[in-house]
Amino acid sequence: MTPLSLQDLEAELKNLDGWTIEQGKLHREFKFASFVEAFGFMSSLALVSEANGHHPEWFNVYNRVTVDLTTHDAGGITQKDIDWAKTANKLA
Amino acid sequence: MTPLSLQDLEAELKNLDGWTIEQGKLHREFKFASFVEAFGFMSSLALVSEANGHHPEWFNVYNRVTVDLTTHDAGGITQKDIDWAKTANKLA
Repeated sequence: MTPLSLQDLEAELKNLDGWTIEQGKLHREFKFASFVEAFGFMSSLALVSEANGHHPEWFNVYNRVTVDLTTHDAGGITQKDIDWAKTANKLA
Repeated sequence: MTPLSLQDLEAELKNLDGWTIEQGKLHREFKFASFVEAFGFMSSLALVSEANGHHPEWFNVYNRVTVDLTTHDAGGITQKDIDWAKTANKLA
């Protein structure tokens, strides 16, 4: 895994509704109707994360979930992060 | 629910292994052997939180879970936060 070029990253971001780059990481805040929905979303993504061996940095308070993605081993944002973000958007 | 006095809070903290006050919130970082253990801990506490109507601010990256507790409605740390912290310590 190598970090995506800025050009590739910008192309991917066009198809990733709600995601931005913040401090070198792929970033999005999700807002749900309730804590149950927010944590249900996190639980689904926890299973996907563990299965793929790729885990997020994420923060939750009540109905909000804030996610930051990077691939530590690669030292940047890789296709793994893009794939995680796409899955998150599908599940949200 | 009213915020605990500083005196009561200090007394409670003596029985709350690992918890400190950070920026006016009850704070602790938990470290586990794996993401599975960390998220299992969060899942258990999510059920307790929802049942009690009292939810944490928490951050997770891989095997680490950082928690901040306060009672927004009361404008400070209350017995609800102390109870949540005790449950967390039992489950960790």
